[in-house]
Amino acid sequence: MYHAESFTFRTKGRATYEITDTVQRIVRDSGATRGLCTVFVHHTSASLIICENADPGVRKDLERFFARFVPDGDPLFEHVDEGPDDMSAHVRSIVTQSSLSIPIEDGRCMLGTWQGVYLWEHRTAPHSRRITVSIVA
Amino acid sequence: MYHAESFTFRTKGRATYEITDTVQRIVRDSGATRGLCTVFVHHTSASLIICENADPGVRKDLERFFARFVPDGDPLFEHVDEGPDDMSAHVRSIVTQSSLSIPIEDGRCMLGTWQGVYLWEHRTAPHSRRITVSIVA
Amino acid sequence: MYHAESFTFRTKGRATYEITDTVQRIVRDSGATRGLCTVFVHHTSASLIICENADPGVRKDLERFFARFVPDGDPLFEHVDEGPDDMSAHVRSIVTQSSLSIPIEDGRCMLGTWQGVYLWEHRTAPHSRRITVSIVA
Repeated sequence: MYHAESFTFRTKGRATYEITDTVQRIVRDSGATRGLCTVFVHHTSASLIICENADPGVRKDLERFFARFVPDGDPLFEHVDEGPDDMSAHVRSIVTQSSLSIPIEDGRCMLGTWQGVYLWEHRTAPHSRRITVSIVA
Repeated sequence: MYHAESFTFRTKGRATYEITDTVQRIVRDSGATRGLCTVFVHHTSASLIICENADPGVRKDLERFFARFVPDGDPLFEHVDEGPDDMSAHVRSIVTQSSLSIPIEDGRCMLGTWQGVYLWEHRTAPHSRRITVSIVA
Repeated sequence: MYHAESFTFRTKGRATYEITDTVQRIVRDSGATRGLCTVFVHHTSASLIICENADPGVRKDLERFFARFVPDGDPLFEHVDEGPDDMSAHVRSIVTQSSLSIPIEDGRCMLGTWQGVYLWEHRTAPHSRRITVSIVA
């Protein structure tokens, strides 16, 4: 059995946005009890992560870490067509993930207690991001 | 055909632990000759990597590189509830992987000659880590 | 349905090489209209990324960013058997991907408009790199 559903998430600019509930809802709607769920983001300046979902401070620290690690407006970057956050957004996407695969058990993604699935918008301006959830069962 | 098996690995603290044999054993037990194997770790402070498996020095260098790249006790971090290795463990997990997918051929994960599958414990204290191996064939 | 095909890509040394067309050709040949495509590289010093495919400057900036982030010949590294780009190649592989999963729709990998699939050779010398494309449908 293969089931897939795409959705659009409108971000408000650079931040992490939890999409766990949407992913779990699509898995539930598929009717699959066991199988493999893959989440894919169709962009190169936004990415996916599995992150601690209890303390929002984790994602604030993560954002600060990445702001230092991949600085916007780095003089190294020549690809600046869309501004100082253009190339940094590509690098940030590449060192995180475009796809995540999670096992399904009892009709749900078998995430650990503290695992949430997040869309990470790397551009500073709001964007519409397309995500596809695929289920193989 | 879908087959999945979970196991717990008790780490001795921050280090890389090879799990290739366990993954290959689960693939063999599934009876699948061809298909896709996905390994998933159910935590946000431990991760999975495919790494060179011949010289243990590679993983020592990797550990040293990450100790400098994501320093424990970085003053940038505010999420320090569980100590100086708490937030660094989350960042290290995010820049590596929570899931790995490997093709199966002839009843085995088709790893390259020098590829091993490793659980990377990012916390300094020992932890029990749950891992699921899923096979779609 | 499961279909897999492996191919060898001869690189000319450190650079990113687009393999999107080969991946799409293998998906087309499989006859799958919907499903999941996984690309896997069988090495620990070359990796896979999904990157912006319009401006080659993006990949030049990416290369420069990584040259600074994971410097060849870093005095930190003791694993230098094969030269100053040996250990840096392993680290670069680990912070990017060994496998990528992409949903298939209408007989094609459903990549976003600006997404290309690239093999990233991290060694400075030319190498033959083996890649497997698996399709579950």
